[in-house]
Amino acid sequence: MARNPVTVRPDTVVISNIAPLIEGGRYAVKRVPGESLCIEVDLIKDGHDQLAAVLKWRKASSRVWQEAPLRPVDNDRWSATIVLDEIGEWRFTIEAWCDLYLTWIHDFERRLTGDQEDFSVDLEEGRRIFSAASNRASLKKARSDAQMLASLAEDLPGTPPREVPAKYGTAVVHALMARWPDRSFATEWKTPCPVWVDHPRARFSSWYEFFPRSAEGSATKHSTFRDCLPRIEDAAAMGFDVVYFPPIHPIGLAHRKGKNNATTCLPGEPGSPWAIGGPAGGHCSVEPALGTLKDFEWLVNQARKRGVEIALDFAINCSPDHPYVKEHPDWFHQRPDGTIKYAENPPKKYQDIYPLNFHCEDWKSLWNEMLRVVRFWISRGVRIFRVDNPHTKPVSFWEWLIGEIRKTDPDIIFLAEAFTRPKMMRMLGKIGYNQSYTYFTWRETREELQEYATELTQGEMREYYRANFWPNTPDILPHHLQNAPRSMFKLRAALAATLSTSWGIYSGYELCENAPLPGREEYLDSEKYQLKARDWNRPGNIKQFISRLNAIRRENAALHEYSNLAFIPAGNDRILAYYKWNDDRSNLIIVVANLDVHLRQESFIHLPLAEMGLGTGAAFTVEDLMWEEVYHWKGADNFVSLDPRNKPVHILRLVRRKA
Amino acid sequence: MARNPVTVRPDTVVISNIAPLIEGGRYAVKRVPGESLCIEVDLIKDGHDQLAAVLKWRKASSRVWQEAPLRPVDNDRWSATIVLDEIGEWRFTIEAWCDLYLTWIHDFERRLTGDQEDFSVDLEEGRRIFSAASNRASLKKARSDAQMLASLAEDLPGTPPREVPAKYGTAVVHALMARWPDRSFATEWKTPCPVWVDHPRARFSSWYEFFPRSAEGSATKHSTFRDCLPRIEDAAAMGFDVVYFPPIHPIGLAHRKGKNNATTCLPGEPGSPWAIGGPAGGHCSVEPALGTLKDFEWLVNQARKRGVEIALDFAINCSPDHPYVKEHPDWFHQRPDGTIKYAENPPKKYQDIYPLNFHCEDWKSLWNEMLRVVRFWISRGVRIFRVDNPHTKPVSFWEWLIGEIRKTDPDIIFLAEAFTRPKMMRMLGKIGYNQSYTYFTWRETREELQEYATELTQGEMREYYRANFWPNTPDILPHHLQNAPRSMFKLRAALAATLSTSWGIYSGYELCENAPLPGREEYLDSEKYQLKARDWNRPGNIKQFISRLNAIRRENAALHEYSNLAFIPAGNDRILAYYKWNDDRSNLIIVVANLDVHLRQESFIHLPLAEMGLGTGAAFTVEDLMWEEVYHWKGADNFVSLDPRNKPVHILRLVRRKA
Repeated sequence: MARNPVTVRPDTVVISNIAPLIEGGRYAVKRVPGESLCIEVDLIKDGHDQLAAVLKWRKASSRVWQEAPLRPVDNDRWSATIVLDEIGEWRFTIEAWCDLYLTWIHDFERRLTGDQEDFSVDLEEGRRIFSAASNRASLKKARSDAQMLASLAEDLPGTPPREVPAKYGTAVVHALMARWPDRSFATEWKTPCPVWVDHPRARFSSWYEFFPRSAEGSATKHSTFRDCLPRIEDAAAMGFDVVYFPPIHPIGLAHRKGKNNATTCLPGEPGSPWAIGGPAGGHCSVEPALGTLKDFEWLVNQARKRGVEIALDFAINCSPDHPYVKEHPDWFHQRPDGTIKYAENPPKKYQDIYPLNFHCEDWKSLWNEMLRVVRFWISRGVRIFRVDNPHTKPVSFWEWLIGEIRKTDPDIIFLAEAFTRPKMMRMLGKIGYNQSYTYFTWRETREELQEYATELTQGEMREYYRANFWPNTPDILPHHLQNAPRSMFKLRAALAATLSTSWGIYSGYELCENAPLPGREEYLDSEKYQLKARDWNRPGNIKQFISRLNAIRRENAALHEYSNLAFIPAGNDRILAYYKWNDDRSNLIIVVANLDVHLRQESFIHLPLAEMGLGTGAAFTVEDLMWEEVYHWKGADNFVSLDPRNKPVHILRLVRRKA
Repeated sequence: MARNPVTVRPDTVVISNIAPLIEGGRYAVKRVPGESLCIEVDLIKDGHDQLAAVLKWRKASSRVWQEAPLRPVDNDRWSATIVLDEIGEWRFTIEAWCDLYLTWIHDFERRLTGDQEDFSVDLEEGRRIFSAASNRASLKKARSDAQMLASLAEDLPGTPPREVPAKYGTAVVHALMARWPDRSFATEWKTPCPVWVDHPRARFSSWYEFFPRSAEGSATKHSTFRDCLPRIEDAAAMGFDVVYFPPIHPIGLAHRKGKNNATTCLPGEPGSPWAIGGPAGGHCSVEPALGTLKDFEWLVNQARKRGVEIALDFAINCSPDHPYVKEHPDWFHQRPDGTIKYAENPPKKYQDIYPLNFHCEDWKSLWNEMLRVVRFWISRGVRIFRVDNPHTKPVSFWEWLIGEIRKTDPDIIFLAEAFTRPKMMRMLGKIGYNQSYTYFTWRETREELQEYATELTQGEMREYYRANFWPNTPDILPHHLQNAPRSMFKLRAALAATLSTSWGIYSGYELCENAPLPGREEYLDSEKYQLKARDWNRPGNIKQFISRLNAIRRENAALHEYSNLAFIPAGNDRILAYYKWNDDRSNLIIVVANLDVHLRQESFIHLPLAEMGLGTGAAFTVEDLMWEEVYHWKGADNFVSLDPRNKPVHILRLVRRKA
């Protein structure tokens, strides 16, 4: 509470309600290089003095602050906008002071409106202020400023009072004095506030997930890393820049699951890649059937040459055959009979998986080993990790692990695959996850989509949570995709790719695979438990649509920014419309989607012209980037008509008229 | 940010978003003894373990925590409600852990729904949990609990699994195990959160302000402290429990202001009491014309015997004749010509007042002297200070001064007379002011009153800002009171006295004094500059109305609580209706006011029956406590009709039917 007795130099200005600040600065705000960061603060000072204030910022590792002036917004709120240009940890703080010059000139101007006759003392006060500023400039060897200030000081006592504002209140003098303020009574916010600047891909990325073992689309031949290149090239051709592999490590034999998650497997069945660890090794080994570590490194390099990063799955699961079980039985939960506890969510049992005990006696070794695993793959070229079920491991562990990795590799990206309760999902974003899975997969109606996208991009979450929208995953074939037509696959892809800045699909989506395990939100004959036969160019695929979608994303800056989403009213509630506008206002994209994948839907949509920089009644052109069509619109209300069989969605770019 | 490497024992539970917490705990939440404090927190834990958690609290000066269990609200939010019983500084914190017993019994019950046959290991796990709990009880010499737990442990392995829930999942066993949990892996919130518990009068008080020198109502004879007792008795009879005096110190002669704020005064004019300090002394002296310090102490005692506290004005202004000017010229702002700077707000000048420079070189002495002044009056019996213009002195000074006073006298009340910008007003509440003036004085329409009362009592401000509503002050005769009828005086008094818990009037209000200085919101012939002639029982006074108002306040617990205000919809926008319900729901008051002071207004009002604990279509009785009438109402919609000439307002008590 109160800073205590009459010993410390007292604050002259109250600094309060700094934003953005996550839980009082306990967690960092996130940005990417070049993204603007607008900081606001209340500055409160007794009396009538004029305030001045700066925002100060630095890399966490630096001692040198940069500064930008804070400007009043209204009602004692001040703000400044900066852009951080380098990946890593940053700090900002606020410094504010009563500005002697501003107070003097402000009071002087008001004195002139009264009946005062003798201004000699006021002029002398001013002279001293300018003279002191000159001395400060002189000390810093700013000779030209020092001379200008000295001559202003010298001339002041002889200046007729009525001429003072015109000579001493100009923008030039303001700027000059702003360079040499007396900050000896300044108050500084004591706890610098954290910002984490991520690799740009943390904000903007397009993911494609496939199982390397099924890369060639054969149900009988296990593919290898060397066989994966065509699949990666196909993903790159579709415009994806991240290819994510389920775990590539040796798969356990004990309790190996069979086809469709059967509790026993037949000889030769490959098992679930998430049951990690066997005679061939654990988390730092590769499944022999996929090839060697060298093969993997070769693939990472080949992919990178094609503009694609390979993301690995970091799944902290151990099969009963994992080397840790023998080497560190104390890292696991032991039961009274001496056995190791398998994973369960009673009455469900997962005998093929042993969870680690992160709070065991020897937790330090365990945590360090996990860190070593991540570093191992980083040293093999991996820069992106998709983390499996992070919500079943301690939050404190992730905060520590991500913090350690960032000390040496600040550009590494961790995607949290936490489909769990909202507060856990948010917390994983707060403690450092760069991207997160979301409930998008289950948001269907206009109301649901608007509400959820608003929560993610317009509330406090936008400062620390970066939503990665997945229409499907190997675990989830949502009801609306089950036996659904192509239009649904196009619709959900378009929504995922334009509502958020990161999106991803699990392979097969582009082929509109839609067969569910009866009564479940899961795939029939799930690839998790078997090799999967596929014709990657099967007729009826939507690869061209996806390619165009990713191309539009790449080419339009508005779709690279996260929290610039605004919805557009439409009379027909099957029509969802929104627009995104980039920070410098050079690119505006309007998306209009027909949420009905069977019937044509039509509606007037009501554009907020003023917010979009258009005059009332303006005539303008929008270009459909998906279908290469042009519409001439006028005023706020414009008619749209979408037949899902050929056009489930418009993706329109506002064409600016030449000046 | 992250708590660092693998050295500290890691947190097992994430504790987050504690509420109420003002600016992350920088400022204290306020309560009074007996007032409930509901604390909420997000508790987040990986996996499926069952959590348990406690709220812990103590006096700031104590080392011993008290504890109450936190209960889940929803969505990982937990809460507990406590009542703090002693004035002073308190701390609370949160401790949470994975509860082994709850997790075990929860999992056991779910296991029974599956196909498991052998439960011996699960039973043994349970046995160990009960046995360990027995040992903990034993260590604390809780023999009976230890024995019960030991016998539960002993019986468990032989218990048929199907019988386990009925024997080991009972409320009795839950309660027993809740007394002896294993908290060795508990996580505690590291920074205890502050609560300030005030004297009850900080929340509930009725103020009456008068100038002691005009106590007898004579324009020619200066009254003394000894003459003030009848006025205090009259105030007590009207139900006021605080009588507030403008400054009682010697008044300066230099630049003394004359009648109606004239810049020169005539011989014998008394001057403004806010121009403090003269040959007879400064802030620790009394104006000789009022009597002696002994007389003042006598009056404080006499008032207290009548249930009234005398509040002093703490106005840090010095007249040019104040002893400080000679003794400590360095405490003031010096101008270049060696003169001391008088107060001004250019082009306005206040030559009779020198402001102190709280950031002067010798600020420590100055601050300590101000502390000495407050302590001086405390030692003379003063427990309440109304602070004049606190927003023109540093916030850091007030935070320090109030903090110092509280170390010895935690029951002292400071009322901030800050009519200034909203954020400064709020900040003064945050740093410790127990009560604050407000904009109520200028809120007139239903919309304005509802919006403002909602901001004060329903948002975050309710945790730290206690509004004292004043219809008038010696400085302010608002436009709506100028030449206004008695009904307006009754209306504004009733609103002030029932919308907030503290209210006050400046004397003359009860006489409906309404003559303004032309064109200003000020009184004609302001008592600030002259002795004032008055007949304190002048015909047309509203003393009886005010007496009844304060009696109703005193007798109805609903009007003692601050943040229990809810508005009631009324079809006619000149009708303002609201209700207040006390914490234990024993007393419900409905206020219906006619904001039109000239014409009768009628309306249906729509009572929120469910929120008021009444069934749909219920018939009930309301008793008008002001006019001693009874109405029989039925259902949500009831008709009201108020003629301002005799009844500007209903103050209704819901009469509960006997069971």
